[in-house]
Amino acid sequence: MKLIVNIHCLGGFREVGRNGVLVESSKNVLLDYGLKVENAGKPKHPNREVDALFVAHGHLDHLGLAPAIYRQYKCPVYVTGPTLDLSNLLLRDSLKIAKLKGMPRHYSATDIVNLHKGEKRIHYGDEIKVGRKVKVDVWDAGHMPGSCMFVVKTRGKKILYTSDFKIKSTRLVNGARFDAKNIDVVLMETTYSSRNHPPRKKTEKELFQDVKNTIDKGGIALLPSFAIRAPELLMVLNDFGADFPVYLDGMAKSATDIFLRHPKFLRKPKALKAATEKVIPLFSQEERNNALKEPCAIVTTGGCMEGGPIIHYIKKLYSDSNSSLIMTGFQIPGTAGRYLVDTNRFVHDNMDLKLKMRMSQYDMSAHAGRDELIKFVKKINPKKVLCMHGEYCKKFATELNSRFELDAMAPKNGDVIKI
Amino acid sequence: MKLIVNIHCLGGFREVGRNGVLVESSKNVLLDYGLKVENAGKPKHPNREVDALFVAHGHLDHLGLAPAIYRQYKCPVYVTGPTLDLSNLLLRDSLKIAKLKGMPRHYSATDIVNLHKGEKRIHYGDEIKVGRKVKVDVWDAGHMPGSCMFVVKTRGKKILYTSDFKIKSTRLVNGARFDAKNIDVVLMETTYSSRNHPPRKKTEKELFQDVKNTIDKGGIALLPSFAIRAPELLMVLNDFGADFPVYLDGMAKSATDIFLRHPKFLRKPKALKAATEKVIPLFSQEERNNALKEPCAIVTTGGCMEGGPIIHYIKKLYSDSNSSLIMTGFQIPGTAGRYLVDTNRFVHDNMDLKLKMRMSQYDMSAHAGRDELIKFVKKINPKKVLCMHGEYCKKFATELNSRFELDAMAPKNGDVIKI
Repeated sequence: MKLIVNIHCLGGFREVGRNGVLVESSKNVLLDYGLKVENAGKPKHPNREVDALFVAHGHLDHLGLAPAIYRQYKCPVYVTGPTLDLSNLLLRDSLKIAKLKGMPRHYSATDIVNLHKGEKRIHYGDEIKVGRKVKVDVWDAGHMPGSCMFVVKTRGKKILYTSDFKIKSTRLVNGARFDAKNIDVVLMETTYSSRNHPPRKKTEKELFQDVKNTIDKGGIALLPSFAIRAPELLMVLNDFGADFPVYLDGMAKSATDIFLRHPKFLRKPKALKAATEKVIPLFSQEERNNALKEPCAIVTTGGCMEGGPIIHYIKKLYSDSNSSLIMTGFQIPGTAGRYLVDTNRFVHDNMDLKLKMRMSQYDMSAHAGRDELIKFVKKINPKKVLCMHGEYCKKFATELNSRFELDAMAPKNGDVIKI
Repeated sequence: MKLIVNIHCLGGFREVGRNGVLVESSKNVLLDYGLKVENAGKPKHPNREVDALFVAHGHLDHLGLAPAIYRQYKCPVYVTGPTLDLSNLLLRDSLKIAKLKGMPRHYSATDIVNLHKGEKRIHYGDEIKVGRKVKVDVWDAGHMPGSCMFVVKTRGKKILYTSDFKIKSTRLVNGARFDAKNIDVVLMETTYSSRNHPPRKKTEKELFQDVKNTIDKGGIALLPSFAIRAPELLMVLNDFGADFPVYLDGMAKSATDIFLRHPKFLRKPKALKAATEKVIPLFSQEERNNALKEPCAIVTTGGCMEGGPIIHYIKKLYSDSNSSLIMTGFQIPGTAGRYLVDTNRFVHDNMDLKLKMRMSQYDMSAHAGRDELIKFVKKINPKKVLCMHGEYCKKFATELNSRFELDAMAPKNGDVIKI
């Protein structure tokens, strides 16, 4: 009897969010188990023993339900240092938000504490054994500090799970580095299967000039940011020679601290350290209001302007035509950030403000663009590609089939692929 | 005891698709009962007697489940002539597609036939009685031929349900015409709460020039269109003086025939008649291939390029750099049309074609734009606005509250608003 491997597509297939893949053989390896952030949606349940959970990086759509998995299975949970620290930060925050918004909570604060008992540190280049016969290679995904790709090796097959990745280096992290040989199956994210990103260096230069111009005319440059993006923005400002005060606010502070604690996972740890040494963190409304008295740059969460200190700053600055709102995150349709881009009005809770600030947007994505995805498949040259984590999984699979000699497909949540 | 009216928000709240509103008083009036087209999703069930169903217009997200309602309640179903004819066409097509795609079917072909027994014709200006005490006014919504707004008058309250509407006239239909006095509650569509449309006449002129230029250089101008949009495109081509062959294909043919049968619901019936008299309908692959032998314009379904004869034409023309693909429908994210706009590749089923045709897009929306919505509320000046059928219902409600002296809100599906 030939032994097969079952790939259970639990979540993140033909959608973005709540990633979950179970590789079933002599041992069952779960790759990510995340949450659909906007509605607390879960992946399908593994419905069988889980012998190990590997978390690709510190984002809720990849680790949001790790506490529930550990509570049920008490299995080891493999994470890099940055992912471990971020998980603590994000899981607590997620619980708080779920409570606030009346969304379902799938675990308790105790479950978060317990999770840490199961967490085991991994590093790029590691080969982790699950039982005697299943091995998992850990590679750098280039998505953010501590982000991993995993290769599950079992029953003579090599299954590469990319999770979120980026080939090109950014100021913050090196691009993905991985051993690409003899891969049978790739489970690949396809977030940007339909779009490319502009050249990063040009974007950074324009962004800095935008901040500088604002400050030169006496305004405040307000940079709403996802927590994880903030350190990169600080580096851009410092590397280009910021000669003005730079403030940091919100959860962006903790994320920056976490990355500084893990210099091995950064491309230029000294540059981040240098950037943050000049940065002034803000904690109270009084400090915030003081900061606004002089031209400066403020990097603050949240990136989609749905919460965080950014709300306070917008309230203070919205009518100041000398100040600028400089956005770097993808503005998700349905969010306050996107509504603002479309209408020039900031609408949040019961507040409706007509913006007089100048507004601009820069693409600083941490995902591979369309051409990178295609090059990646060409380089790996696998037998089979399972497209996931995207809006066009099926179409991109069709395109890969027509471009290359391989079997690309776009399974649905709940499908089981036998290899 | 003061008598109240309950507005049951069944579907289309904080979302687009599957509209359904039940106004409950001495008699229960159901306003629209549609389908979420992409996944055959249903509104919530009325869960009480339904005494009459009023259908606002001939689109599946407004009438897709009318057969199921009639099967259960045997209540009168009020429709205009064009809506009646379109319902027949669309319900059959919807059943076919559901079968093809393995989606749930909520009614049978027999239910469609039976529905016609319950259908009662209405006209703009009618006042329909439901029982002795409930009355419903029928007004022109300006969205498409036969489209209605309804005002339910009961227990001293006037409740205006806009369904989809447009204030400005188009070449095909007059803009919305309605009696705006003493409205207590407006249930308003907010599809374009965040965006305005460009001036229609300028758009039409550019569109025609685009077609003309293509033909002048010996190419084919391919105009994918939703069935309902096709007659308007034919009018644009004819009114601007098309001196080239114009072909019509797919369900667009039936939709055009239906509108011609209802001249009272058109703005310029003679102009549509004149336009269609010159148009050559296509039925077979042979006719299609013959049409492609000479420069011409082809108006054909489907609008999002997910099906219909458009597929055949793209296969034939994709590599012809003299030909043009001229899009007028909103390209919904996730569809082949949108993927094509983003990547320049037409991916459908297992086909992947790299387009060499020139591609262009024109906004010819049949919905009120952002400024029209705001003006509409100002004109109606109601006590309460329930924002629905949009991506930003809550934010737009907040904006209305800050702009006007009224109570705007964005209920969720399942909410009951008491007035």
